[in-house]
Amino acid sequence: MKLTKTFVPTLREVPADAVIVSHRLMFRAGMIRKLSNGLFAYLPLGLRSFRKVENIVREEMNAIGSLEIKPTVVIPGELWKESGRWETMGESLLRVKNRLGAEFVVSPTAEEAFSALVRDELSSYRQLPLSLYQINTKYRDEIRPRYGVMRGREFVMKDAYSFHTSDESLDKTYEDMGRAYRRIFKRCGLTVIPVKADSGAMGGSGSEEFMVESAVGDNTLLLCKSCDYAANVEKAECKLDFSPRMSAEAGKAAAASTPPAKKIDTPNVRTIDELCAFLKTSSSSFIKTLIYKALNVELDLKAAPGCEGLKKHKSSPDSPETCAEAFFAVAIRGDLDVNEIKLAARLKASEVALASEADVERLTGAPLGFAGPVGLTKLPVLADITVTAMNDAVSGALAKDLHYKHVAYGRDFSPWMIADVRTVKAGDRCPLCGGELYEKKGNELGHIFKLGYKYTKAMKLSYLDESGKSHIPTMGCYGIGLDRTLASVIEEHNDEDGIIWPVSIAPYHVMIVPIKYDGKVKEAADNLEAALEKMGIDVLLDDREERPGVKFKDADLIGIPYRIVVGDKNLIQAPPKVEIKHRREKENKLVEYSKAAPELAEKIKAELAELNR
Amino acid sequence: MKLTKTFVPTLREVPADAVIVSHRLMFRAGMIRKLSNGLFAYLPLGLRSFRKVENIVREEMNAIGSLEIKPTVVIPGELWKESGRWETMGESLLRVKNRLGAEFVVSPTAEEAFSALVRDELSSYRQLPLSLYQINTKYRDEIRPRYGVMRGREFVMKDAYSFHTSDESLDKTYEDMGRAYRRIFKRCGLTVIPVKADSGAMGGSGSEEFMVESAVGDNTLLLCKSCDYAANVEKAECKLDFSPRMSAEAGKAAAASTPPAKKIDTPNVRTIDELCAFLKTSSSSFIKTLIYKALNVELDLKAAPGCEGLKKHKSSPDSPETCAEAFFAVAIRGDLDVNEIKLAARLKASEVALASEADVERLTGAPLGFAGPVGLTKLPVLADITVTAMNDAVSGALAKDLHYKHVAYGRDFSPWMIADVRTVKAGDRCPLCGGELYEKKGNELGHIFKLGYKYTKAMKLSYLDESGKSHIPTMGCYGIGLDRTLASVIEEHNDEDGIIWPVSIAPYHVMIVPIKYDGKVKEAADNLEAALEKMGIDVLLDDREERPGVKFKDADLIGIPYRIVVGDKNLIQAPPKVEIKHRREKENKLVEYSKAAPELAEKIKAELAELNR
Repeated sequence: MKLTKTFVPTLREVPADAVIVSHRLMFRAGMIRKLSNGLFAYLPLGLRSFRKVENIVREEMNAIGSLEIKPTVVIPGELWKESGRWETMGESLLRVKNRLGAEFVVSPTAEEAFSALVRDELSSYRQLPLSLYQINTKYRDEIRPRYGVMRGREFVMKDAYSFHTSDESLDKTYEDMGRAYRRIFKRCGLTVIPVKADSGAMGGSGSEEFMVESAVGDNTLLLCKSCDYAANVEKAECKLDFSPRMSAEAGKAAAASTPPAKKIDTPNVRTIDELCAFLKTSSSSFIKTLIYKALNVELDLKAAPGCEGLKKHKSSPDSPETCAEAFFAVAIRGDLDVNEIKLAARLKASEVALASEADVERLTGAPLGFAGPVGLTKLPVLADITVTAMNDAVSGALAKDLHYKHVAYGRDFSPWMIADVRTVKAGDRCPLCGGELYEKKGNELGHIFKLGYKYTKAMKLSYLDESGKSHIPTMGCYGIGLDRTLASVIEEHNDEDGIIWPVSIAPYHVMIVPIKYDGKVKEAADNLEAALEKMGIDVLLDDREERPGVKFKDADLIGIPYRIVVGDKNLIQAPPKVEIKHRREKENKLVEYSKAAPELAEKIKAELAELNR
Repeated sequence: MKLTKTFVPTLREVPADAVIVSHRLMFRAGMIRKLSNGLFAYLPLGLRSFRKVENIVREEMNAIGSLEIKPTVVIPGELWKESGRWETMGESLLRVKNRLGAEFVVSPTAEEAFSALVRDELSSYRQLPLSLYQINTKYRDEIRPRYGVMRGREFVMKDAYSFHTSDESLDKTYEDMGRAYRRIFKRCGLTVIPVKADSGAMGGSGSEEFMVESAVGDNTLLLCKSCDYAANVEKAECKLDFSPRMSAEAGKAAAASTPPAKKIDTPNVRTIDELCAFLKTSSSSFIKTLIYKALNVELDLKAAPGCEGLKKHKSSPDSPETCAEAFFAVAIRGDLDVNEIKLAARLKASEVALASEADVERLTGAPLGFAGPVGLTKLPVLADITVTAMNDAVSGALAKDLHYKHVAYGRDFSPWMIADVRTVKAGDRCPLCGGELYEKKGNELGHIFKLGYKYTKAMKLSYLDESGKSHIPTMGCYGIGLDRTLASVIEEHNDEDGIIWPVSIAPYHVMIVPIKYDGKVKEAADNLEAALEKMGIDVLLDDREERPGVKFKDADLIGIPYRIVVGDKNLIQAPPKVEIKHRREKENKLVEYSKAAPELAEKIKAELAELNR
């Protein structure tokens, strides 16, 4: 392809809103243009790389027997009402009403559409397992789209859904998908961090996220310096640096030599820092007690203090009984933070948030800052496991300007529940090997889940087993964001001059730069292009009337892996020569003109084979 | 591919709403399923054929140097406001407001998006011509979607847009596109009728539609039995079977021997049929006069009778002056019909419709049924060219139960305008060769237009020429509906048993049907599959445990071009044999097992080459 015959509007300047390198480089290299906030058009160069990502994803899906289908992008709203997500999905779901009043969504994900399609065809166990996927346009109405195609409103996702008669069958497909995902990212030249993650709004359990490191990542990851443990902070656990005493008796025994709890005046001391200063001690000697409000609590609260009057209800006949709202006191060692996602998971709540000041006063009988587990009766106390090791602590005394000294777990209070709800952070110990954990910011490129029966039950899928008995199938779902994957390749492969493409995703493998596209040089450049293309190599020839410096700068910017410079001086040598350089290298290498094409083709094919291995 | 490893839910029954053969067969062959009215999902078999159409379109676009890009499906509404189509597009445009109140459209076509992208990059004449295309999802909110994917709400269109510095440059790309379209349809095995068509709501002039014959087609076409004239009835002209007398003087001269016009009583006679019966003559002796209301008339009406008081206005600074509403009397020979699209084009009106009974009474002074050109002063008379040949006609006399006899054009009335506004119909004469015209119903698969400056002007595109002067580029637009094209292939290639695919679009080229998938037969079938696939042939192997009759019925239904039946009896012959049959043929042919794969592969490749020639 001649550069003047395609459309690659490269730029020197950087758009003001492009804060990450992939956004800057995709824009400057003429790969994308912005149509509007969060809406990007791929130009020819960008689309070529995008299609290479798409084909790798397609090949790997086909290789594990997943079948490609193509539902619509605009999906009937009624399907989302069946699953319940019309209500629960929030405002990121783009809802549309057409001229006849029919409601639609512009699909952000397709559990409903795939479940509905399979529901209509499924009758026998013999049809299962069934694994279907699409590579299609999605829309999520991000309030603040940013980072270019890394977090756009419209994007392309490969989403697969599988249906099974048993957990074992789901496990197998889930494992196949995990392997396929690892291959996809490897073939793209990407270093991913597979992370066991909370499946969040998608529901279900058993899931793995595929993350790439990113300074602007949405996720905080905890990784072990000694082993390959990796977890999203939302779920991360750590090895304890103490022996927990799980029973109240053990706690009481450990407090044998602790003086009795004693109230102390702490005028105007509310925060842990103020307490540390006032008592001249460290935050780890305090029991911090926070009051949380939890919504839609599924956990059984019959035996929980202060919950006697709570009413339970079902939002639909098939959904579990929940309490719309309940309050909890969460006690944790003073140097640690409560992880609200872990807390919500323990409580089986849809959401938890710190209670209002008024609620705190009502429930603790004291202003904000003086809550503590001792004597707290109006609500259940959930103690983080760290509290069980504390037998001589300071805590709030449920009255203004008053704290307790010498508080001991098991002697002075017995929590309703003990659980791990701490936020793990850098410096904590790996739960697997005890190594030191460190933090990284990450972006999610892919996610595989075992959804279980959430959608198949809500949408009433069923099949008959060998004996004619009806069952609900179990389900998995598996997504990869294509735009993000492409942008992440650039995030990982670039330098100050531009992109450095892996051959598998490069829009072209070779860029031919004639010093002046004229006479013998033109002929030699054209011949090289033809020879390489015949060998299946993608070639871009810079046939512009520009100075060599401009051409070299653009070549570096758009980052084609191999560059061949064709110039008069080298061509008149005997034998004639051309200069070849990998984008990563600084120095050109003189190669015989007649050998340039076959040698380069072989090299590129070897690199491709290595990536695809 | 083994049939049990893919997902092809064939059906015996026909869905009630499937009235055309492609809809019935795509549904029965398990190619598509309905998600909702006008929203269809392609299942694996359908998607394979769909992708083959897509690839043919892509190859032919690339071959003429059009560049693929990928804008979003959801497009900012502000772009549609710039072009003015936010207002004019009507309710088929799916408009969406997001959570922040920003307005979007789900793209039905992309003149705006492409113009906006090019606008931002265009500076110099050196960047032109530029031809860009996308193959992407579109949505049109059809009130009554029907005929399966032939008229769905969501569909995939290839739409290309080109930008030029001159008409000559636009002409060249337009011609290239026309040739590419002919090749696309030929490669798909489709017989298309290229038709010069009115470009309708798209604006601009110079356009060609690519139609396929269809009993449920949206378009009526007129074709010549003797030459290759083909026109949409919306624009069709015909050779006149009389000598028109264009000047009033000529009309008056021709009426030299006609008695003076005379009023006759015609009690309760209003329709042409009633008049024919009453006067015992034929409808061609009458001048039929219809009163029309026209909207947004751009034509200059300064000199038109009764239009003195009409006000003109501009809907935007750049748009032409128009009259919001004006009335016209249209006179035509009594055996002919007025073509409202031709009439609107002559009047440069956005729309014309018959006036209300009240308007007719107000403007003609008589009840409905008694309008005529003689003495009509309150509105302009537009005479179809047929009226100029009438020098002894009957017409309404602008009073209840009264008509004129002996009316002569040029003597008794002089119309404000003479124009061709008749509806051409079967039996009329070809305007090119005089041959007999006949009618067909057709569906539009593709359309190429010269848009001119409509969008580039409204959206303020400009470039500098060699001397640094600013110009607006001219523009072309070129669309093909992929779903329709695929459905049309089935419409053209089927029989009572199912589809008969051309090899280029067939989901698989060869279907292997083992009589019983077991033992030696299984081995032979598997070997044939592997051998053919190695030769680049797409193979489907029916490995189901079904009776041969069921397998044969499904093979006929899904219409794979070649079928190989592998059975015990033929395999034990010396040398072993298999049966090969083309889907169109009735009889199997015995072929040596060892030669089956190479012979068939060669045949299929030859057929593909012939289609692609």
